[in-house]
Amino acid sequence: MSVPAPFARVAVIGLGLLGGSVARAVQAYMPGAVTTGFDADPAVRMRAREIELAAEIPETAAEAVAGADLVVLCVPVGAMEAAGRAIAPHLAPGVIVTDVGSSKASVARALAEALPGVSVIPSHPVAGTEQSGPDAGFAALFKGRWCIVTPPPAADADEIARVTAFWEALGARVEVMDAEHHDRVLAVTSHLPHLIAYTIVGTASDLEEVTQSEVIKYSAGGFRDFTRIAASDPTMWRDVFLSNREAVLEMLQRFSEDLTELQKAIRKGDGAMLFDTFTRTRAIRRSIIEMGQDDARPDFGRSHED
Amino acid sequence: MSVPAPFARVAVIGLGLLGGSVARAVQAYMPGAVTTGFDADPAVRMRAREIELAAEIPETAAEAVAGADLVVLCVPVGAMEAAGRAIAPHLAPGVIVTDVGSSKASVARALAEALPGVSVIPSHPVAGTEQSGPDAGFAALFKGRWCIVTPPPAADADEIARVTAFWEALGARVEVMDAEHHDRVLAVTSHLPHLIAYTIVGTASDLEEVTQSEVIKYSAGGFRDFTRIAASDPTMWRDVFLSNREAVLEMLQRFSEDLTELQKAIRKGDGAMLFDTFTRTRAIRRSIIEMGQDDARPDFGRSHED
Repeated sequence: MSVPAPFARVAVIGLGLLGGSVARAVQAYMPGAVTTGFDADPAVRMRAREIELAAEIPETAAEAVAGADLVVLCVPVGAMEAAGRAIAPHLAPGVIVTDVGSSKASVARALAEALPGVSVIPSHPVAGTEQSGPDAGFAALFKGRWCIVTPPPAADADEIARVTAFWEALGARVEVMDAEHHDRVLAVTSHLPHLIAYTIVGTASDLEEVTQSEVIKYSAGGFRDFTRIAASDPTMWRDVFLSNREAVLEMLQRFSEDLTELQKAIRKGDGAMLFDTFTRTRAIRRSIIEMGQDDARPDFGRSHED
Repeated sequence: MSVPAPFARVAVIGLGLLGGSVARAVQAYMPGAVTTGFDADPAVRMRAREIELAAEIPETAAEAVAGADLVVLCVPVGAMEAAGRAIAPHLAPGVIVTDVGSSKASVARALAEALPGVSVIPSHPVAGTEQSGPDAGFAALFKGRWCIVTPPPAADADEIARVTAFWEALGARVEVMDAEHHDRVLAVTSHLPHLIAYTIVGTASDLEEVTQSEVIKYSAGGFRDFTRIAASDPTMWRDVFLSNREAVLEMLQRFSEDLTELQKAIRKGDGAMLFDTFTRTRAIRRSIIEMGQDDARPDFGRSHED
């Protein structure tokens, strides 16, 4: 990037997959910016220092945010309010606080409560892997992915532009929308898929007549795809479902109705209905690949040589 | 392999992803065996000749199976009976007929009808990609994957051993079980996952308040994983659901009950229940990777540099 870094001192609170990736990406792609980091877990702080996730990883959140002109909260959405309260008295004047939470209306409310008078511009980089913890982070996580910024109605245009420039510097493409719309979009593109994956993996492990070992052995028939996202961080996802409850329940309702239709078609032996449905869904995959949002190689590019 | 090839002349009927992969794998890993191929679609036959999927690709199924000591039926399960009838009068004495169908009890019945007096040893290599057609096949598809052989109760032990040796020569690990148990195991590890994936992709494309373009843009949040298997061949999958109806409906019933439990937990705000469920499902992913049934790299090894 030839443009100047939008921030000089970036504090990352929470050093898991997302926080670690933000810290590494700032170091890699925003030369000149100083990174500080903090995690409430002493073991994570120690590990983060060993692998040099940030230039400075002090013992308190207060020290981590001191003098920062950008604070990025990378904690589970249910912990946002407490994280906000912990840093509130220590923020520098003119700081912008953003976050990476997967639901946005509830985070906006929590941070407005915790940080009165502070410029809060929430964001959600739509990126991740099934891994968690400080070792899971990597600088390229945001490259080519979308980041949704959800400024409150009264937000300052210049501050929105700076947060946008920050994510763009990390390689993301930015879209601005309101928090409520974000929550409905993500309910279908992320939250419902995780709920379904967690459910089917649970169903498979509870069967009596099919053993766990059979489920594992024959998982290449499709099941293994679901186990990847069902291996995601349980705390993070518990908080997502609790914080985006209404939108998730609504999308789930629609999904259940559609599933009932297919169930009926199978029961009645309605091959034409099944064929039509299965044909319609092929086009979306093609578009996702054309838009650069997935690997074009068959089977996600998995290795087929053992 | 230093053991002699279990068959000298292998005829592959149906030259899509599976048939093409079988033909290529025989050429690659069973030196000395002659491959012949046939597809009911003239365009597929022509393309298969251009890319040399098999040594001989004649104009009729009759010519393709003439003199073969193994015939592998690689057509959708709903087309098995017709494929069997088409080759029945032309089979050499002593031939073994196998197949690659994803449901086994119905295929066993269909082939017993179509091929009276012929040795039929059905099998199901649990392997594939979301692609289809003759260009999608590749020799390594079966390497390290499981192949389930489902011999009828009266099958000859030597014939079972030869079919087992065939799949092992192609790189697969073989398990023998009865067709009914196969159909229940695969209902949960393959058929239900496909049904769920087709459903959620359909649900997402039918929303009014979230646009198709938003679904595609933000698919990296989890949704894109489902679009892969929902891009699978519609004819093949229609036939799978119609032919394994009872087992699929039973697994679907259990899945729906489990989903209702999670829905209730979200509605009631029962974070402990959600956390427990999401923790339990992590272990299965670990086992699948330890058993060599998936790529250990995060995000299936997808590229993160655009």
